[in-house]
Amino acid sequence: MEIINDQLARGEHPKAGVFERAWSWVKALPGNFKNKVTKVAKNTIKLGKDDPRRVIHSLKVAMALTLVSLLYYWRALYDGLGVAGMWAVLTVVVVFEFTVGATLSKGLNRSFATLLAGALGIGANHLASLFGEQGEPIILGVLVFLLAAASTFSRFFPRIKERYDYGVLIFILTFSMVTVSGYRVEGLLQMAYQRLITILIGGGTCIILSIFLCPVWAGEDLHSLIASNIDKIANYLEGIGGGEYFQLPKDGKSTKVTQNNGYKSVLNSKNTEESWANFARWEPGHGRFKFRHPWKQYLKTGALVRQCAYQIETLNSHINSDVQVPQEFLQIIQASCITMSTESGKALKALGTAIKTMKDPKSACQHLENSKNAVEELHIALKAASLEDADILAIIPAATIASILVEIVTCVEKISMSVYELSQLADFKVVEATVSPEIKPQLLHKGSINPILLDDGDYNPHVVIRVDEIDMGSHQEDDKISRQTPKGPKQIEEV
Amino acid sequence: MEIINDQLARGEHPKAGVFERAWSWVKALPGNFKNKVTKVAKNTIKLGKDDPRRVIHSLKVAMALTLVSLLYYWRALYDGLGVAGMWAVLTVVVVFEFTVGATLSKGLNRSFATLLAGALGIGANHLASLFGEQGEPIILGVLVFLLAAASTFSRFFPRIKERYDYGVLIFILTFSMVTVSGYRVEGLLQMAYQRLITILIGGGTCIILSIFLCPVWAGEDLHSLIASNIDKIANYLEGIGGGEYFQLPKDGKSTKVTQNNGYKSVLNSKNTEESWANFARWEPGHGRFKFRHPWKQYLKTGALVRQCAYQIETLNSHINSDVQVPQEFLQIIQASCITMSTESGKALKALGTAIKTMKDPKSACQHLENSKNAVEELHIALKAASLEDADILAIIPAATIASILVEIVTCVEKISMSVYELSQLADFKVVEATVSPEIKPQLLHKGSINPILLDDGDYNPHVVIRVDEIDMGSHQEDDKISRQTPKGPKQIEEV
Repeated sequence: MEIINDQLARGEHPKAGVFERAWSWVKALPGNFKNKVTKVAKNTIKLGKDDPRRVIHSLKVAMALTLVSLLYYWRALYDGLGVAGMWAVLTVVVVFEFTVGATLSKGLNRSFATLLAGALGIGANHLASLFGEQGEPIILGVLVFLLAAASTFSRFFPRIKERYDYGVLIFILTFSMVTVSGYRVEGLLQMAYQRLITILIGGGTCIILSIFLCPVWAGEDLHSLIASNIDKIANYLEGIGGGEYFQLPKDGKSTKVTQNNGYKSVLNSKNTEESWANFARWEPGHGRFKFRHPWKQYLKTGALVRQCAYQIETLNSHINSDVQVPQEFLQIIQASCITMSTESGKALKALGTAIKTMKDPKSACQHLENSKNAVEELHIALKAASLEDADILAIIPAATIASILVEIVTCVEKISMSVYELSQLADFKVVEATVSPEIKPQLLHKGSINPILLDDGDYNPHVVIRVDEIDMGSHQEDDKISRQTPKGPKQIEEV
Repeated sequence: MEIINDQLARGEHPKAGVFERAWSWVKALPGNFKNKVTKVAKNTIKLGKDDPRRVIHSLKVAMALTLVSLLYYWRALYDGLGVAGMWAVLTVVVVFEFTVGATLSKGLNRSFATLLAGALGIGANHLASLFGEQGEPIILGVLVFLLAAASTFSRFFPRIKERYDYGVLIFILTFSMVTVSGYRVEGLLQMAYQRLITILIGGGTCIILSIFLCPVWAGEDLHSLIASNIDKIANYLEGIGGGEYFQLPKDGKSTKVTQNNGYKSVLNSKNTEESWANFARWEPGHGRFKFRHPWKQYLKTGALVRQCAYQIETLNSHINSDVQVPQEFLQIIQASCITMSTESGKALKALGTAIKTMKDPKSACQHLENSKNAVEELHIALKAASLEDADILAIIPAATIASILVEIVTCVEKISMSVYELSQLADFKVVEATVSPEIKPQLLHKGSINPILLDDGDYNPHVVIRVDEIDMGSHQEDDKISRQTPKGPKQIEEV
């Protein structure tokens, strides 16, 4: 360093470029550091503001940990449990998840797996001890090897992986630990007992705190995710219906639609939906949801919504291509295209609101009817049209869009059927047909709608359609509620 | 039971229905049990046959566990490490994952987090001890609370969640355990040291076994997943090109295409791709992949392939609708539609093969060119067509399909650009332009192709196009290799 300083002092710059860059880097360091800290602070505040439940969750975990630490500080408990108190700390850290369902799933998996593996482990130890001093470690080693291999392989079964993955992991863990330490540690039974008690204390703390202190229910998140996904595609459809794509061009050029890309997140929502539905199954009844709420029907509805989003994705790529539509053709399809997209958008909005408020999805019925009528009108208009001097090449882009819109109307119909089934299964407030009876057979005929699946897996051949006159005027009220309900699910697990 | 038997003997059937059902259930029990066992056995064999690496993985985990158990059986080690040897067992069970990348990620996260948290924990203990007998537990409790809350919140940051989630978990765990037990256990330093050593032993065993014994590389899986996804959409396109949809109907009715729904799995491959890319980053160089292989470019390519799959999904719903296409219109579009789908399918096949064999994607060039020419031909044919007495309503379905095919050709072009970039970044054997130079500016003009992104995040404004004459005759060879390479990725992580 002194040599370099000397050189710099004498005005010599042997590797000027390198040093200058290094110096300017050092000079910029405090500023860069400050920028970075500001950025992290801003991100932190944003994360917290986006979903305050994250802050609450962090405090809950910290509280659970501090509570469990009492095991150590409080002498009486320490004397009883010894160093095993550590397992309670470990359990809290590992088990406490963001949603109640995930916490319950992990906590119960851990408790039962420990119990089972502990019992098996003690049994294995007794068995091995029959083989004498020499044989014992060999028998234990072979048993650990076999059970570990079998359990690890069982984790590849989709159904086990989905629900009991963590349990199997803890099973291998506890079994190996109990058998292996049984060979050395005296008081094996006491150790197993302590481990179980501490895991129950840790897991119990987590479960109680997660259920009774500002609970985050996976089921509720799934419920609002599906509703908001429906809203997102509804927004897109209403956007292009009310937008400028189908307007007659004033300056002879078709104007671009304002982008409304909220629907894009629907395309990849499958994993989130499935894991939330999986956690929701572990949750006890809460608020508007019973213990055996039909979570599977949410997955079905979600899949249909995603199907619709794929169509919209294609529609979007066609709408954004810069092609001039001949006015004469636009006049033919304009009205029915606007009605198709606007009305199917409105139908979806009504379905989303029906899910959110858990009221009957009846209000979607009229909009769906309108959009289907528009399809008919389009067909009639096209049949009547004579396009003798039409440029077929110029017509095609607009025709394609109309054609995809027709397909979307079919999709929306399927979604409405699925929401209707959901409303039946989950006992929404006033159960009523979403589509008029004469439409239904035709729908069922297409083979795309499954008959109502009851909770116990039996098919119900009867579809009850009750018409309730009392609630006929509630559309406006629904609209009001839909505006009050905050939009957008909190997709925390994926962040 | 005796009463019931008596009643039955006397021919009385008090609750005949119930008992009969119960009896037939009991009678069926052995059969049902046998069926269930057979089914599970069949499933097990199928799981193992589908991917034998699963069996090997299970054996590897069992071997690692048995090796680590030696810590206990071997007295010398036991005397040195005491009960802490358990941590080695725990580490093996928790860290050993299916792919090398996942194992490395967990092992390194666990080691560094333990080291850091252990050091911080010991520091916290010293700090707390300054506050005397009374103050110590309070200070420790406050420290645990603060650190646990902050760490838990940090797990909501997407970048931390993606790569260091497990590390943060272990950090909270170790810190709480060290500070809390420091208050009680003597020889805190020794405990921290033992814990670190055992974790290193357990983690080291896992990492060594997973790398040197039949390794499963996440990077290799990602590589073949992308290639096989490209293959799947290629199969669909070739299927409809060679299929009967565009054939002139012989009996006046359009025939249905044979379903080829392999592409459906591409729609939801995002999560798998992202997690494999994430694990691949942790992996050292192996086989054909260097340490800093451009995994990000695979994600880009995968996203474009998915985009194409969305278009195909829409195309599929249109192709399956039962509409009769007027022969006169079919004649106009037939040739170019067949060429578009067949040639873009072939281009994709060539791109898939180029990725699989890591050779230059040059052979796709001609097919892409052909499909683009077919788009031009379609335009010309439609411009020249006079459809004075045409039924516009009947034309639209076929026109829509043609229109979506044009969009798919654009998609395939983007995929080919992305694969070309990949070939440059990953030094595929002979690097050459996938599209001829005069096409490229037009592509870039659409704003859909990003300039080449170098590994360090800088943009490279120069695109080097080298033309190599030597390899011009290798198309057929590529085809041969593509047939030999087994198809379909092993999506084990998702099972």
